Amino acid sequence: MVLREELLGDAEVGDKVRIKKESQSYEGILMPSHRFSKKDVITLKLKNGYNIGVVCEEDTGIEVIKKSKKRTEKKERRIEIDEDKPKISILGTGGTIASYVEYRTGAVHPAQTADDLLYSNPEIAERCEPEVEILFSKLSEDIVPKDWVTIADRVVEILEEGTRGVVVSHGTDTMSYTSAALSFLLHGLSKPVVLVGSQRSSDRPSSDAHLNLLAAVELAGSDRPGVHVVMHDSMSDERCAVHRGTKVRKMHTSRRDAFESINERPLGYVYPNTGEVEFEEEKKVEVKKGLERKGGIDERVSLLYANPGLTQEDIRDAGKKEGVVIAGTGLGHMNTNLIPALKEVIEEGTPVIMTSQCLYGTVNGHVYSAGRELKEAGVIFAGDMLPETAMVKLMWALTLDEEVEKVMKENISGEYTCRRVR
Amino acid sequence: MVLREELLGDAEVGDKVRIKKESQSYEGILMPSHRFSKKDVITLKLKNGYNIGVVCEEDTGIEVIKKSKKRTEKKERRIEIDEDKPKISILGTGGTIASYVEYRTGAVHPAQTADDLLYSNPEIAERCEPEVEILFSKLSEDIVPKDWVTIADRVVEILEEGTRGVVVSHGTDTMSYTSAALSFLLHGLSKPVVLVGSQRSSDRPSSDAHLNLLAAVELAGSDRPGVHVVMHDSMSDERCAVHRGTKVRKMHTSRRDAFESINERPLGYVYPNTGEVEFEEEKKVEVKKGLERKGGIDERVSLLYANPGLTQEDIRDAGKKEGVVIAGTGLGHMNTNLIPALKEVIEEGTPVIMTSQCLYGTVNGHVYSAGRELKEAGVIFAGDMLPETAMVKLMWALTLDEEVEKVMKENISGEYTCRRVR
Repeated sequence: MVLREELLGDAEVGDKVRIKKESQSYEGILMPSHRFSKKDVITLKLKNGYNIGVVCEEDTGIEVIKKSKKRTEKKERRIEIDEDKPKISILGTGGTIASYVEYRTGAVHPAQTADDLLYSNPEIAERCEPEVEILFSKLSEDIVPKDWVTIADRVVEILEEGTRGVVVSHGTDTMSYTSAALSFLLHGLSKPVVLVGSQRSSDRPSSDAHLNLLAAVELAGSDRPGVHVVMHDSMSDERCAVHRGTKVRKMHTSRRDAFESINERPLGYVYPNTGEVEFEEEKKVEVKKGLERKGGIDERVSLLYANPGLTQEDIRDAGKKEGVVIAGTGLGHMNTNLIPALKEVIEEGTPVIMTSQCLYGTVNGHVYSAGRELKEAGVIFAGDMLPETAMVKLMWALTLDEEVEKVMKENISGEYTCRRVR
Repeated sequence: MVLREELLGDAEVGDKVRIKKESQSYEGILMPSHRFSKKDVITLKLKNGYNIGVVCEEDTGIEVIKKSKKRTEKKERRIEIDEDKPKISILGTGGTIASYVEYRTGAVHPAQTADDLLYSNPEIAERCEPEVEILFSKLSEDIVPKDWVTIADRVVEILEEGTRGVVVSHGTDTMSYTSAALSFLLHGLSKPVVLVGSQRSSDRPSSDAHLNLLAAVELAGSDRPGVHVVMHDSMSDERCAVHRGTKVRKMHTSRRDAFESINERPLGYVYPNTGEVEFEEEKKVEVKKGLERKGGIDERVSLLYANPGLTQEDIRDAGKKEGVVIAGTGLGHMNTNLIPALKEVIEEGTPVIMTSQCLYGTVNGHVYSAGRELKEAGVIFAGDMLPETAMVKLMWALTLDEEVEKVMKENISGEYTCRRVR
């Protein structure tokens, strides 16, 4: 094996280099190697933003084209920060966007160290004065409701310190749950809070990490307040879509344009290459006062998927928690034989919310007799709210000193589009 | 109130009539009145296939334009049947397609009587020799797994009697669960079995009942074997899409084009006005032998929706049944803290299947460490199979005298598109 260390010579991380190998030639910025990378692999960031790994062979040569100027003191701060540019905070929570491939096994792990994220994306420093902080490092399937509160609290602190906007980098699996939670928890928000993730890690040629992060930084520097999710809009690298935090859903396991706004169009688009931020509707910036984390999260809420096999015992099991959200069939139905069990749950004081597993459209308890029976039993119909958003909202509503039904029916953060709350 | 009976005079159900009222004039076929209809409402089927209800007023007049010829003996058979045309069986199970609006409350109920369905759609008799049978009458949210077996058994009997194909009219809420069940239960199928529903009852001007049913009859008369769902393809009335029974999902609460093929394109289209049936891929008709209902349904399967609030107790509750299907996050993940509880369930002999709540795309247990841990715990990854289809398939697999994992991984009725079963 030809060791990376032997080849690199004077070349340092951050330098622009050319690697020649057989008849191939690769130009790019020399990237740091992860501690799990194989010893014979050199990682380069290409001009298009993608990273590649080049395996060192006997005939491989490396040439420094341009030394990095961006470094001041190697260990302390490796990228030149322009303090005249808008200050943007980047809060890392883990996920593919800050993950690396373990070459030994091919599996992807969350990054363990701090500002690798910034360092892998030097263009960010050309657009803003970034403040990077790794709050925690979890793949998003491991994020639990109390993490939402941790993120919300830190966002409030950071915004109070005077930043222009906050980017929260996050794993994609549960990013929409977190964006919904922040939409309810962050009260009096007058600045942008932008969640961003990537579907493919930055070690892969098709990674979306770099462009998504640039787009998120641009949006965080805009004057559009609110909690948003920014992700690739199509298979191309042209633009990213801006989704409302309460209306977005991951609709594909692996595509880069997996995130979709449900029951409304994306609010706008960011063109990361030009920095342009464009919104469908101009929204007057409401200068809200009294930013605070309002309420908390009571994680004891069940999300129940209605289906022909559901039993009364399933209902009772779900009802052991403090609240139940049903992803009903069609307009918000379930087997009418189960309504008595549901009624028992409600009579014990547990709120039950009805949404639709169709995802698109709105529930309606008036069209069919099954819907009317559910309403009579006390089930709260949640219009076109997504099942996941309804679950998060109920977790939040349970911690407020207000009537749960009233809170659930109020349109607090754009979670109702059609406003058909009946 | 001006009573319908007083106005009708010689006009009989089935006649083409013109109703004049104030400055309006309506032409259409006089329809039977449901027993819950108000006494002053006359129902007309317009030329475009939609039904309207006209309220009788003092100035309302009715004129018979053309007496119905189609009636032989009123009580016995009201539509002339041409026995030279292909014999198509229509099996009613209830739902909006065979429902009526209770004018008193505005709510929709399933039709209680038999061949109202055929009688409301006289064009069917111009295209085939229809045999209509109401197997049962349920809104589809009330359909339970044992109903799937009842339908399958009756379809086998009917096909053995020598019909060209079977149309199963069904409520839309759980139609895709039933289509998946029939796809597994009907073994050796060499004729078309077509499920059809409607999103809006035939009493509403925007009803899709009529065209969907015509399209279903056309498909049932074709030589395309297999279990399919036929529903409106777009908001227009031009064509209906043909979906594979295992890949279809109701993706909107109310739109007429709510049904979508997930992870594959519709298999084909039916143009109900011309009768044309067109498939994307020509499929050689496999003359399968030995039609039978294979296996049964063990309804004791949980469908668990992974989310950040899920607890070990939720896993244990789900594991009380004979099988568990998880709608995981992303590529098929859940909180890694829950894997030990899942492992206990699996070690007790309960199969656990992983699908994705993204719906689009395919699960993959190799990309992230969470996936690998789940696989090591014995979770069976189900490729791009829909969560609902996986639930139905597991209910079926549990009744077979074969290894459940082997059955779940085999592509039996097109439930795997990508075939990435790992």
